[in-house]
Amino acid sequence: MTNKIRWGILGPGKISRSFAIGLLEAEGAEIVAVGSRDRRRAAAFAGEFGVRNAYGSYEEMLADPAVDAVYIGTPHAFHHDQTLLCLRAGKHVLCEKALALNADQAARMIAAARETGLVLMEAMWTRFLPAMVRVRELVATGAIGEVRSVTADFGFRAKFDPASRLFDPALGGGALLDIGIYPLNLAFMICGEPVAIQTQANLGATGVDEESVTLLRHEDGRLSALSCSFRADTPREAHIQGTEGRITICCPWWKATRIIVQPREGKPDTMDLPARGGGYSHEAAAFMDLIRSGVPESDVMPLDESLAIMRTMDEIRARWGMKYPGE
Amino acid sequence: MTNKIRWGILGPGKISRSFAIGLLEAEGAEIVAVGSRDRRRAAAFAGEFGVRNAYGSYEEMLADPAVDAVYIGTPHAFHHDQTLLCLRAGKHVLCEKALALNADQAARMIAAARETGLVLMEAMWTRFLPAMVRVRELVATGAIGEVRSVTADFGFRAKFDPASRLFDPALGGGALLDIGIYPLNLAFMICGEPVAIQTQANLGATGVDEESVTLLRHEDGRLSALSCSFRADTPREAHIQGTEGRITICCPWWKATRIIVQPREGKPDTMDLPARGGGYSHEAAAFMDLIRSGVPESDVMPLDESLAIMRTMDEIRARWGMKYPGE
Repeated sequence: MTNKIRWGILGPGKISRSFAIGLLEAEGAEIVAVGSRDRRRAAAFAGEFGVRNAYGSYEEMLADPAVDAVYIGTPHAFHHDQTLLCLRAGKHVLCEKALALNADQAARMIAAARETGLVLMEAMWTRFLPAMVRVRELVATGAIGEVRSVTADFGFRAKFDPASRLFDPALGGGALLDIGIYPLNLAFMICGEPVAIQTQANLGATGVDEESVTLLRHEDGRLSALSCSFRADTPREAHIQGTEGRITICCPWWKATRIIVQPREGKPDTMDLPARGGGYSHEAAAFMDLIRSGVPESDVMPLDESLAIMRTMDEIRARWGMKYPGE
Repeated sequence: MTNKIRWGILGPGKISRSFAIGLLEAEGAEIVAVGSRDRRRAAAFAGEFGVRNAYGSYEEMLADPAVDAVYIGTPHAFHHDQTLLCLRAGKHVLCEKALALNADQAARMIAAARETGLVLMEAMWTRFLPAMVRVRELVATGAIGEVRSVTADFGFRAKFDPASRLFDPALGGGALLDIGIYPLNLAFMICGEPVAIQTQANLGATGVDEESVTLLRHEDGRLSALSCSFRADTPREAHIQGTEGRITICCPWWKATRIIVQPREGKPDTMDLPARGGGYSHEAAAFMDLIRSGVPESDVMPLDESLAIMRTMDEIRARWGMKYPGE
């Protein structure tokens, strides 16, 4: 029998609700605690998910010896401090993407995790989906020949609200860290770290990026064209082009359940690869496997790669002249 | 009754065959002559299309007083000299895209046409398709709100052959001038001339661009992400994203017969807009209307815009460090 991993949920917001549903569909997970700065919100979440302990501060939750692992579901701006708090309390950490506001923060978080030997992982759930596992297998086995380019977009029209997490610089707002990170992560997964970056963005009234297009050049000349937007709905598809065919990851590609492999000659092959728990079960299961096997770092979403992605986002923002408060 | 325009075909190659089929489906066209450096090829073309006069040189064809207008269907590298020859002979010119190798050549061609008062037009047939007329109407009437971005690709795997027009620098080879010009032209049609250009390419063994991605910034911050490739098949779709919806121009978008309008809320509207003559009749009809009405320049594919597109392609190639022989 799989030994149970006992979870604390840090920040009972919308993404934590989605994650909790997925987590409870994964084998061997129990949510034993939830912590919020607002005790009533913690209590509401606890009621909804049948959680034993609802805490009115993160520190109280982290002092609970029943908690093995913490899921951090707060805005990006808080990930650094909260991850350090969790690690100091001896808890494994699955931290929502983006891992941090910038690479400096991410590097400190990773160093702290490595000192403790605890598991730290960026909650880039898309990478763990069965459809994405299949995409990696197809690419690795040469199903589309040599990869030449990746194109991916994630854009939706968000109602402008300066107080919303999406638009507030103090909360790490902006389209890149929130949704542009998905296309960027895909480009890393397929083509690795870029060797050249070109990018254009439009910053909005609050100073954060509301839309952008980024062009990456990778090793071997592979190219990525990536876009994200809070101002317009985009097709929300991803495409990997190779010399012998291409793969389309169907809309909405970041929660992929269908891919189409189109060989250069011949008919397309449509593959349906359902995900469990709204897509969140797979990352949760992989994270718990790391804890159980005593392996502190994922090789599906490695910390060094999460760090490199943060570095690339820093560089992209630098080209735009966009800084977060305190940077 | 529409008065007949009598055509000469300069260069009886593959694109001229496609054009001739489309031309003969347009009202009031007659092909009266064909000219080639190779008299046998001219004769073969004449036989195929029932053309009275097959000439073994362009000069002979241009001396034929029965020819009102010339279609130039040769590689880009020859467009400049041949257009000047035609204009000096008093013939209207429909010149295959790209209009020239570079903006200098295009400017001279345009100046020569304006001196004579003859019609000169770049044969950017895509703009004249009923589907593209509808796209312009939809955008102009605000069907998708304010346009924020254009994405378009045109890529196919071409067999590498250094002697082929596609790969030979002496013939103006490379993906940008041959197929990348379609996405670029669409970006111009929707967003106008760029104010900033970022681009990455891979040049091949013959020194021409075999694949590239280009990012344009336009007035009002609108963005375009455009790609072309001889190395990999791409989705060959175009998308126009607006604040209130988006338009997909379905594959193969440059010979569009279907568009899908997806409003921000509500169901998508699929519109089938068939083209005549393989798509070539519409530009031919528009060109002949110019001649008949004594208007020397198209307002659908204006010469100043063709020139601006050449300038942009010059700049893109300059970023890559790519020059054609003689530049």
